[in-house]
Amino acid sequence: MPFARHVGVEVTDAGDGEATGHLELDDVHSSSPDRFVAHGAVPYALADTVGGAAVMSIVGRPTPTIDMRIDYLAPANGARIEAHAEVVRAGDSVAAVDVTVTDGGGEQLATARGVYKTGGGDGETAWESAERATD
Amino acid sequence: MPFARHVGVEVTDAGDGEATGHLELDDVHSSSPDRFVAHGAVPYALADTVGGAAVMSIVGRPTPTIDMRIDYLAPANGARIEAHAEVVRAGDSVAAVDVTVTDGGGEQLATARGVYKTGGGDGETAWESAERATD
Amino acid sequence: MPFARHVGVEVTDAGDGEATGHLELDDVHSSSPDRFVAHGAVPYALADTVGGAAVMSIVGRPTPTIDMRIDYLAPANGARIEAHAEVVRAGDSVAAVDVTVTDGGGEQLATARGVYKTGGGDGETAWESAERATD
Amino acid sequence: MPFARHVGVEVTDAGDGEATGHLELDDVHSSSPDRFVAHGAVPYALADTVGGAAVMSIVGRPTPTIDMRIDYLAPANGARIEAHAEVVRAGDSVAAVDVTVTDGGGEQLATARGVYKTGGGDGETAWESAERATD
Repeated sequence: MPFARHVGVEVTDAGDGEATGHLELDDVHSSSPDRFVAHGAVPYALADTVGGAAVMSIVGRPTPTIDMRIDYLAPANGARIEAHAEVVRAGDSVAAVDVTVTDGGGEQLATARGVYKTGGGDGETAWESAERATD
Repeated sequence: MPFARHVGVEVTDAGDGEATGHLELDDVHSSSPDRFVAHGAVPYALADTVGGAAVMSIVGRPTPTIDMRIDYLAPANGARIEAHAEVVRAGDSVAAVDVTVTDGGGEQLATARGVYKTGGGDGETAWESAERATD
Repeated sequence: MPFARHVGVEVTDAGDGEATGHLELDDVHSSSPDRFVAHGAVPYALADTVGGAAVMSIVGRPTPTIDMRIDYLAPANGARIEAHAEVVRAGDSVAAVDVTVTDGGGEQLATARGVYKTGGGDGETAWESAERATD
Repeated sequence: MPFARHVGVEVTDAGDGEATGHLELDDVHSSSPDRFVAHGAVPYALADTVGGAAVMSIVGRPTPTIDMRIDYLAPANGARIEAHAEVVRAGDSVAAVDVTVTDGGGEQLATARGVYKTGGGDGETAWESAERATD
């Protein structure tokens, strides 16, 4: 996954509806030139990637994200962020996943909840087959 | 729908991926015994019901809610709330819907975004067929 | 709280940023006249109320909901739903709360994440003081 | 903003609670090595950045993201994505923002809704002053 590599996301483990990953924080991840605090899209990129890996570990093929909500609980201003994802429910159409993002020491930095597509073909998006846009 | 009736939700129009409804506010809807301001679950009940009606108008059968987010923008403390829902994308598995809740005069009180199940059988929930709970 | 009573929500415990409540399900809560499955706004009403009670237990005064997301994991078609809320972070402006809704036997039916206002006066909404609507 | 530059986000306009930006898509943004479709974190990074710029245009200082939800409506597989953000309500504690992400031709690719902190000091996060973690 080129973008995951560009951002530095590493998925280290995935299986049975769970996945784990991390990201080494660097100046490039900062939201400010003056002091280091990771841009909110950095933990998001980790959460979305690890969440997708958790679903894929059950479904066995790419599972596009339908939606994700992330809540920021503390600044990511250390050396590393880690994420653990767990599928809380998987159906024939969609799966719901909980992701927790922590710093290296276990403090929660963010939590995310995502819904991923599990059915309807090996699509590049959640909407590929039989799409009916109404707007 | 017994609960929609219990709360006072009326869906007045549904078709082509859009739906409209309203609710006459009464003392029973208040979140406080001292002054009238509708409980947050009142606009939510209207939004979820009208959103489902919009999806059902395309799909033709019950479409369980997978998730919904509601943002409260102003207090619902007038005589009435109204909602308009619009399907922004409908696929073979899920549909995404935007709902706007206003007072009688057009002021936005809340906006909601929901994802509903469109595929996988005439289920009472989003998870009915081939469900694989992993926790 | 008139609406909580109208729906049947009971908050049984609140303190130290946590709260617990339940709701006895009845025909009136159904989303269908034919078979019993609770309308999605029923667990939402419980989650929002219990979530608010958890925040209020820290802040000591009403804390309007700013936004809430709910994910439905299984149908609420039993005799009772229960909810437990926990403040995951409370600041001077807002607090974030996790809510889990279960049936009487501990199965997860829904999870919710809400953000509530904690600062800026004893307001009936999140937006009361110094509000600047831009639309 | 180093990370926004790393991803390629450009904010071209911000004022009066609105902001506009774009991002030229490149191989580095892909979620797949085989065919080009942008990783979900790419439109998220654009949406969060442009949403923050819209709030900052009113508040005049950094406004950390409290939470954001993004819904993916179509694959970002063209040459460019664009975003427009609009503050729908700004209070003394928080602001709510709507963001629409489109391709170069106006097709909606994603919508996002975020809540940003507007009060409580020039903090690097939403939780800086008087933070009371309860877990």
